Amino acid sequence: MTVTLRPLLSLGLSAALMLPLAAQAAEPEDAIEYRQSALRVMAWQLGPMGDMAQGDIDYDEEEFATRARNLASVAHLPWEGFMEGTLRGDDHTAETDALAKIGDDWSGFEEKQETLKQEVATLARMVDDDEEFSALRRQVGAVGNSCKGCHDDFRAE
Amino acid sequence: MTVTLRPLLSLGLSAALMLPLAAQAAEPEDAIEYRQSALRVMAWQLGPMGDMAQGDIDYDEEEFATRARNLASVAHLPWEGFMEGTLRGDDHTAETDALAKIGDDWSGFEEKQETLKQEVATLARMVDDDEEFSALRRQVGAVGNSCKGCHDDFRAE
Repeated sequence: MTVTLRPLLSLGLSAALMLPLAAQAAEPEDAIEYRQSALRVMAWQLGPMGDMAQGDIDYDEEEFATRARNLASVAHLPWEGFMEGTLRGDDHTAETDALAKIGDDWSGFEEKQETLKQEVATLARMVDDDEEFSALRRQVGAVGNSCKGCHDDFRAE
Repeated sequence: MTVTLRPLLSLGLSAALMLPLAAQAAEPEDAIEYRQSALRVMAWQLGPMGDMAQGDIDYDEEEFATRARNLASVAHLPWEGFMEGTLRGDDHTAETDALAKIGDDWSGFEEKQETLKQEVATLARMVDDDEEFSALRRQVGAVGNSCKGCHDDFRAE
C-alpha cells in the first residue's frame, strides 16, 4: 500500500471531521479494515441475540447476557476508523460501503453512532437488571433498528 | 459456504475443547473471520501504544489511556472463534494461521489467553492509577510478549 493518509488536521478539513483520538498515521486501507473488523465483531455478538429474539433459536439467558455485555464493550470502537480519506470515492484501494455522505454530514453520522451506543448500553443495563426476555427482545429490535438507521443513510446498498 | 460445523458437543470432542458460551451454529469460515476481526481490533488498539513505547511517536497520555482501556474491553473476545473445525487442516475454505496444535493442547492455549488478558488488564489498571510512562512502557512490552508467546506456539509462521 503506497497511499498516504493526509494528515487529519491539514488545511481544508472541517472541524466536524476531526476525530476524538489523535489519529494514527494509518493507511486508509488499514483504517477501513479496522472498522470493518470492529463492525464484524459487533455483528457476531448481536447475531445470536437476534436469533433468540426472532425465535430462531431458544432463549439462553446466560449467553444472551454475555453477548449483550460484549456488544456494549465494543460499540464505541468502530467509529475512529471512518477517518478522512477512507470513504467511497476517496483515494484508496480498499472496498468499502461507507458513502462519501458521511464526510458531508459528519454530525448526522455521529448522531447515528450515539443512538446505537445508547441502545446497546440500554440492552446491557437491562440484562444486568435481570429484565424479562419479552423486554430484552424488544430492545434487541431497537438495537437492530439503530444499525439499520445508519446503514439506510450512510452505507451503500 | 456449504461446510457445516459439527456440533460442538458431538461424540469425540474432549471436554477441554468445550467453549464457555453455547456455540453459535456458525460456519467455520465465519468463526475464523470473527476471531481474525477481533484480533485485528486488538492489534489496532495496541499499535499506537507500541509505537509510543518504542519512541516512534510521542507519548500522548490521553490516547494511551483510551487505547489501553479499549484493548482491555476486547481482549476476552477472540477466543470463542477458535471453535472445533476451524483450525488448519480442518474441513473449511478459509485461510487461517491457527495451528491444529490448538486442538491438541487446548489447556495450553487457554493459559496463553489468560496471560494476555491479565497483562492487558494490568495495563488498563495502571492507566487508571496514573502510573508513569516508564512503567506503562514496560507493561506494553509485557502485553506484546504475551501476544508473541501464543503466536510462537500456536500460530503458523
